Amino acid sequence: MTEFFDRHQALLQDARKALTARGFWAPFAEIPSESVYGAGSRAAGQAAFDALKGQPFALPGHPEQRRVGAEESPFGGALDITYPAADPAALIAAAQGSAQALADATPKARVGALIEALVRLNRHSFLIAHATQHTTGQGFAMAFQAGGPHAQDRALEAVALAWDEMTRFPDHAIWEKPQGKAAPLRLDKHWTLVPAGVALTIGCNTFPTWNGYPGIFASLATGNPVIVKPHPRAILPLALTVRILREVFAEAGLPADAILLAADTAEAPMTQALATDPAVRIIDYTGGTAFGDWLRANARQARLFTEEAGVNTVTILGAPDFTGMCDNLAFSLALYSGQMCTAPQTILVPEGGIDSDLGHKTPDQVGQGLAHALDRLLEDPARAVGVLGAVANPATVARMEALRQGARVIRDGRPMLLAAGADDAVAQGECFGPVAFLVTCADAEAALDRATALARDRGAITAALYDTDEERIARAIPAFARAGVNLSINLTGAIYVNQSAAFSDFHVTGANPAGNACLTDTAFVAPRFTRAMWRRQVA
Amino acid sequence: MTEFFDRHQALLQDARKALTARGFWAPFAEIPSESVYGAGSRAAGQAAFDALKGQPFALPGHPEQRRVGAEESPFGGALDITYPAADPAALIAAAQGSAQALADATPKARVGALIEALVRLNRHSFLIAHATQHTTGQGFAMAFQAGGPHAQDRALEAVALAWDEMTRFPDHAIWEKPQGKAAPLRLDKHWTLVPAGVALTIGCNTFPTWNGYPGIFASLATGNPVIVKPHPRAILPLALTVRILREVFAEAGLPADAILLAADTAEAPMTQALATDPAVRIIDYTGGTAFGDWLRANARQARLFTEEAGVNTVTILGAPDFTGMCDNLAFSLALYSGQMCTAPQTILVPEGGIDSDLGHKTPDQVGQGLAHALDRLLEDPARAVGVLGAVANPATVARMEALRQGARVIRDGRPMLLAAGADDAVAQGECFGPVAFLVTCADAEAALDRATALARDRGAITAALYDTDEERIARAIPAFARAGVNLSINLTGAIYVNQSAAFSDFHVTGANPAGNACLTDTAFVAPRFTRAMWRRQVA
Repeated sequence: MTEFFDRHQALLQDARKALTARGFWAPFAEIPSESVYGAGSRAAGQAAFDALKGQPFALPGHPEQRRVGAEESPFGGALDITYPAADPAALIAAAQGSAQALADATPKARVGALIEALVRLNRHSFLIAHATQHTTGQGFAMAFQAGGPHAQDRALEAVALAWDEMTRFPDHAIWEKPQGKAAPLRLDKHWTLVPAGVALTIGCNTFPTWNGYPGIFASLATGNPVIVKPHPRAILPLALTVRILREVFAEAGLPADAILLAADTAEAPMTQALATDPAVRIIDYTGGTAFGDWLRANARQARLFTEEAGVNTVTILGAPDFTGMCDNLAFSLALYSGQMCTAPQTILVPEGGIDSDLGHKTPDQVGQGLAHALDRLLEDPARAVGVLGAVANPATVARMEALRQGARVIRDGRPMLLAAGADDAVAQGECFGPVAFLVTCADAEAALDRATALARDRGAITAALYDTDEERIARAIPAFARAGVNLSINLTGAIYVNQSAAFSDFHVTGANPAGNACLTDTAFVAPRFTRAMWRRQVA
Repeated sequence: MTEFFDRHQALLQDARKALTARGFWAPFAEIPSESVYGAGSRAAGQAAFDALKGQPFALPGHPEQRRVGAEESPFGGALDITYPAADPAALIAAAQGSAQALADATPKARVGALIEALVRLNRHSFLIAHATQHTTGQGFAMAFQAGGPHAQDRALEAVALAWDEMTRFPDHAIWEKPQGKAAPLRLDKHWTLVPAGVALTIGCNTFPTWNGYPGIFASLATGNPVIVKPHPRAILPLALTVRILREVFAEAGLPADAILLAADTAEAPMTQALATDPAVRIIDYTGGTAFGDWLRANARQARLFTEEAGVNTVTILGAPDFTGMCDNLAFSLALYSGQMCTAPQTILVPEGGIDSDLGHKTPDQVGQGLAHALDRLLEDPARAVGVLGAVANPATVARMEALRQGARVIRDGRPMLLAAGADDAVAQGECFGPVAFLVTCADAEAALDRATALARDRGAITAALYDTDEERIARAIPAFARAGVNLSINLTGAIYVNQSAAFSDFHVTGANPAGNACLTDTAFVAPRFTRAMWRRQVA
């Protein structure tokens, strides 16, 4: 049935236009307000979240051999929710059992159902905000935006590009080859979309929906059943997503088992077994490079789309607005305690200092400027909690503690700002969490060389540059592009290097070790299906 | 410079239209006629080929540490041509040295130069025909078509789709986010295309240009330097191609070393060293599955696009035109002595026989019908040479000889037709060369099951079906699609299952073990580059 498609066709067309315009377009409202989401929606979301706690999570009809679940809120307290769990073989079998029906459904049926699911997920944004907050540690406002509407935007973006790709070539054509004076040769040709196979999404602890949705929705749109393997500490946001998708699929006459939850535990993980199953032909992975390397070595039967670790740099060579720069960077460093994949980490400054609107600044003065800006931003405790959120994983806290030992501390607390030399190894790898390094380089060229080399060799999702020298900026732009990293120049005010907007920013370029996939370019959707033809002569 | 682009813009636009229409369109004329290619073109091509023999092949400015070359015509006689050769490291260095200039050139500059090169290659089609004939063993007419215009069509197809993909999203945009009553946030965004890196094309003995061009031209169009590693027995067609590309690139102000020849010998091959070089990020491979497996295991730093082995089947369940069917299949079996990747090999017939316009036919009678059709087709020796060509590789002759031992021979000679049981292993793997197997199956369903299972499990590029039962045909169509293979139904006359036309047929689906890449769909071009952004606030 294509009733959902008909209902959402205008939204799909708007999304397609936005994809090619790449200006601002946000179909799902980002403001956690009852004026947008309806009277009572805030309280209803809270109540729905409270009702889930301490209960078995219902996924009707889902494979279930046992229950697992040990999520604890980074803000304190166990969620005490259990999820249906099944062995990899049972999940693979269920996915395969759904594959043919999903493949046989038309693109309209699949795309319509997926947009309907997004609209319903959007209505549940307050609930998803609580689920995201209490699994990732994000502050509530961020959990609402990143877990809800921004993730939904990214999903719609993937669906719209998948639609474009599925409909890019016709599904039939007449091929007529002239034969001089004889009758032409004529063939009637028909093409069927052939999905790649079972898809596996390996979720992360910090952005389960935002990072998970593009692959999940792109795979489903192109006809591949998806097994969602959430991080054991962040199951709920994806479990809610799977539930809504299964409900909509059932209503749409699509197989509910085309979307499955592979809940597991840190003690008995099943990612490796799933990833190496011969039936799994697509893997979307967000996480560290070590496991990315493992997947590359062992899951060779699958197409692998990754977002991995990197070293995001800020190169400060000059400051047209020193205070504005410090305030802007302070927010980027503090937001969600540096646990965004886009958060800056390694700040490069020439040892001779920089020019600014407030006069010359030494590296120490730059460090102090950043430290003071962080203090200003975080001095109000309530605001600080909202900005910083909580640290998602206890291992991160331990790592920060270890880093502090023997370090030159510019600012202690969260986030920490440490001084490092140009060759200190610590600043040249990803230190996930609330820490940044102020690294002094010989001069401006050395700082740029270091920033671009880190992106090229270690990976980077974002880079920031502050400078007053337009000629040097013009030279830096192609150097960062060659390093395959997105660059933000002289940001001040309420635009931050961390931010990546659906329908405009391509998130992760795919051009350096921070990931091989890009949200969302054509290479992210096109390899998820192929075409098979039948052809026959016509008289 | 974009003079070439301006000159060829109309051709590019026609190609883009043809891509989406997918009817018949062949920009490069396939008839080896002086009325098309100009008075004297035939003799000039012959003379140019004769002049190359026994000489060092000139590639001005190309890395050269020594000379290699030991090609022998499958029709007899050594070519005695030597080519400049260099170690992998020297070739990689030269490619890398060209990379930045090629990346910095605009898509217009690259695409314009590539189409100019195709137009020049087309003018040399008679020369390329001789070069193809005397390295691959194809008959002259086929060598002209497949080596020249058909390969050029496939190249233009790849260039046109690469152009579409590079220009699919804008290179800049203004992102303006409303802020209620405050001034909107505004960002000026710019995107740069970032090529993936050095590309390696691993050529085959039988279709050096037809199979090589799509990857070569797609990589160059998207800004990646290409190292062409020809099969040691079929260097000349690709050496001519490299020379013309280098000439045009130099004229266009592009780096000539963006296209390099990696000539080697069977005794000292260098494919593995090239394929595993960290700089190589794209590999296009045509060849056997064993080396494909090696590449998957060892060249993990590169995106791999493959066409590998498969078992193409013909399922004969009924014949609306028995004689027409036999004649059609005889040509498909005989053409180029079965050395096409699209040639049928394993012919499945129900043991109870089939219905046809000439009455019921037993499996034996089907075999005799095919044998007689082959005899009819090949009784005139001159015609036989043109159709059969020569066997490219002496190993193929030895394999045919071994197969004959103890086999039930339906037709001896070239091509051989052997009888095989449903479970004989020999008919279930690729036997490259002039042999086909007539396999008797329990019934029609068993034959269809076997054909689709072979495609799914062993790979297939083509499948053919003959039947008189329309309901069964309707059931077979989705079964073959699920097996990821292109299906031709009831072909008779001058349309053959072997034929794959650029701008209409997607060659190799990428959906079964016969290859992971498709000529030419979006997934073939999009992963060859990424985008990097810079963004900056605007007042």
